[in-house]
Amino acid sequence: MDQRVFDHAETLVDWSARIDPGDDVVVRVGEGAHDLGVAVAEKLGERGANLLACYDSEELTRAYLRAHDGNFESDPAYELVMYERADSVLSLRGTRNTSATADISDERQQAYAKACEEIREARLDTDWVSTVHPTRAMAQQAGMSVEAYREFVYDAILRDWESLAEEMAQLKTILDEGSTVRIRKEGDATDLTLFIDGRIAVNSTASVADDSHNLPSGEVFTAPYDTAGQVVFDVPITIQGQQVEDVRLVFKDGVVVDWEAGTGGDVIESILETDAGAKQLGELGVGMNRGITRPTGQILFDEKMAGTVHLALGRAYDACLPEGESGNDSAVHVDLITEMRIEGTTIEVDGEVIQQDGVFRWE
Amino acid sequence: MDQRVFDHAETLVDWSARIDPGDDVVVRVGEGAHDLGVAVAEKLGERGANLLACYDSEELTRAYLRAHDGNFESDPAYELVMYERADSVLSLRGTRNTSATADISDERQQAYAKACEEIREARLDTDWVSTVHPTRAMAQQAGMSVEAYREFVYDAILRDWESLAEEMAQLKTILDEGSTVRIRKEGDATDLTLFIDGRIAVNSTASVADDSHNLPSGEVFTAPYDTAGQVVFDVPITIQGQQVEDVRLVFKDGVVVDWEAGTGGDVIESILETDAGAKQLGELGVGMNRGITRPTGQILFDEKMAGTVHLALGRAYDACLPEGESGNDSAVHVDLITEMRIEGTTIEVDGEVIQQDGVFRWE
Repeated sequence: MDQRVFDHAETLVDWSARIDPGDDVVVRVGEGAHDLGVAVAEKLGERGANLLACYDSEELTRAYLRAHDGNFESDPAYELVMYERADSVLSLRGTRNTSATADISDERQQAYAKACEEIREARLDTDWVSTVHPTRAMAQQAGMSVEAYREFVYDAILRDWESLAEEMAQLKTILDEGSTVRIRKEGDATDLTLFIDGRIAVNSTASVADDSHNLPSGEVFTAPYDTAGQVVFDVPITIQGQQVEDVRLVFKDGVVVDWEAGTGGDVIESILETDAGAKQLGELGVGMNRGITRPTGQILFDEKMAGTVHLALGRAYDACLPEGESGNDSAVHVDLITEMRIEGTTIEVDGEVIQQDGVFRWE
Repeated sequence: MDQRVFDHAETLVDWSARIDPGDDVVVRVGEGAHDLGVAVAEKLGERGANLLACYDSEELTRAYLRAHDGNFESDPAYELVMYERADSVLSLRGTRNTSATADISDERQQAYAKACEEIREARLDTDWVSTVHPTRAMAQQAGMSVEAYREFVYDAILRDWESLAEEMAQLKTILDEGSTVRIRKEGDATDLTLFIDGRIAVNSTASVADDSHNLPSGEVFTAPYDTAGQVVFDVPITIQGQQVEDVRLVFKDGVVVDWEAGTGGDVIESILETDAGAKQLGELGVGMNRGITRPTGQILFDEKMAGTVHLALGRAYDACLPEGESGNDSAVHVDLITEMRIEGTTIEVDGEVIQQDGVFRWE
């Protein structure tokens, strides 16, 4: 087996999930993630943790949901107690078909998600980590050969996380102490000011120790409470299965007052019309994972790309809010990405340039 | 997908496990049993039962057990409570390599089995059913092409179980009321008398309704308390991975006093020497599954073959014993099979012929 699969398992178990001897670990093995499952099982054995393997199969889920009448029982106790008693849940995603659940109705999926809400919360109460084992289906979605896609995924995952975490901590301090962030790009019309006074930046280190639950990660994000100016998102991304490119948003008093899109205008329109919060920003994120050098249509990778900034329309994360303060609320949270590795591009915090042409001042 | 996979799932869920709406069902999906898992998920959805899929992978288990130091925690609570709260556990076996766990030491395997004893018992306290999805590895073990092996497995599984259960009930009544069973074969030296007075025959219908937990099944068995005479086992079988053929056992006062084997004498010798109970019979079983027409080296199929009788050296099953009575005790339970579809062959109960040349008197 590819040595990188074992290295991935080690990073997941030791850096991300911080597994200790005797921990009760649920490993959710995706249909195409068997090999990573084997490597994780080995690592859990070495650490003296306990192992319970679940099968996270889209094809089983599809067959079940389609055949069911839709009146799902709420949070069946046998599954709920398992997650309530678990210390960690490691989700090894790895689909064999990214469209495997395309013919389940939204209504049925939502009814099931609603019925399993307590189970989901019990899972999120553990030291959970979600990661990805590279499959052919995912390579196909990214428009890459499987070999190239494996390179890509492992470049993103097998980082020196400790040193990246330290670097990102610097940016967190700057954002925690700062009041305004200004993003400018000479090449297009981007000149956006975001107000973050009092908000808390999250150092997303891919470790439960920092309340960061995705491997790979590598971003620092916060939640602006106000926005003014305009921004162009020039990194092509995939939203709801559709290609979206060159979106321009104009903000006044924190709200989108004008917009256009080169490609995927329908998707942007439907997002903006979801609710009032969908017209405001919930997140300002700075990608810092240097292993991710190109977009692949998978937002969890794309938004971590070093030398990019992403902004999310919609819901803010609680972790960014001081106690008692509520952030932007919405049913959606949609990330859009802009490229910073271009001449004449800056991020300023309280008037001080912290990144120029995609390079931080400490690089 | 092969329609027989869906028929298999329906037989498993409806006939074998008797799943009701709202039942909490754990489905243990073997590495090679994905397709059956999908069909079972569909059937559980239709029935309105709850589904929790576990991944029953030999390769994960091997990696975990080999890497662990061997000091396993006893019955981790998160797994124990899951099985304690489950109504049914459906094990879909389907290995991709029958030797997948060959390099785990016996010591390590036993230590793990011991640590998981309560979990195992909680599982056996549910309406559990174990079945087999035909894989290439299992076809290979049976010396068959995968297509021929699928035919074989589905012939065994897709029976008219209701009518077979009724037929087997007749034999159960005869054995329950009978005191002695005599098995004679003109062609070899077989003439064996088994004493079963007061013992209870089990109608193994592949349904939890009859406390029968394997699909396929199709046998009626009881536990003799005494045996006299001799018997030749002419059906080749596989014990501990080794071929065993033409075993002759001679009994006096219930104990093996003489024996020989055409092939596999070493295996038989080591079994007989295990303990005192290993030299006595724990089971007399009559195969009645007409879908099974040839041995395949998988005892759960072989012993159900219509027109055969099997006798087990070692432990008796509790289900055959009246309250307060204890049966033959041993660390082993090893089945040996003799062919009855031969001219001049009879089974008599209390002097009355109930089967001749492999054909029951009611056929």
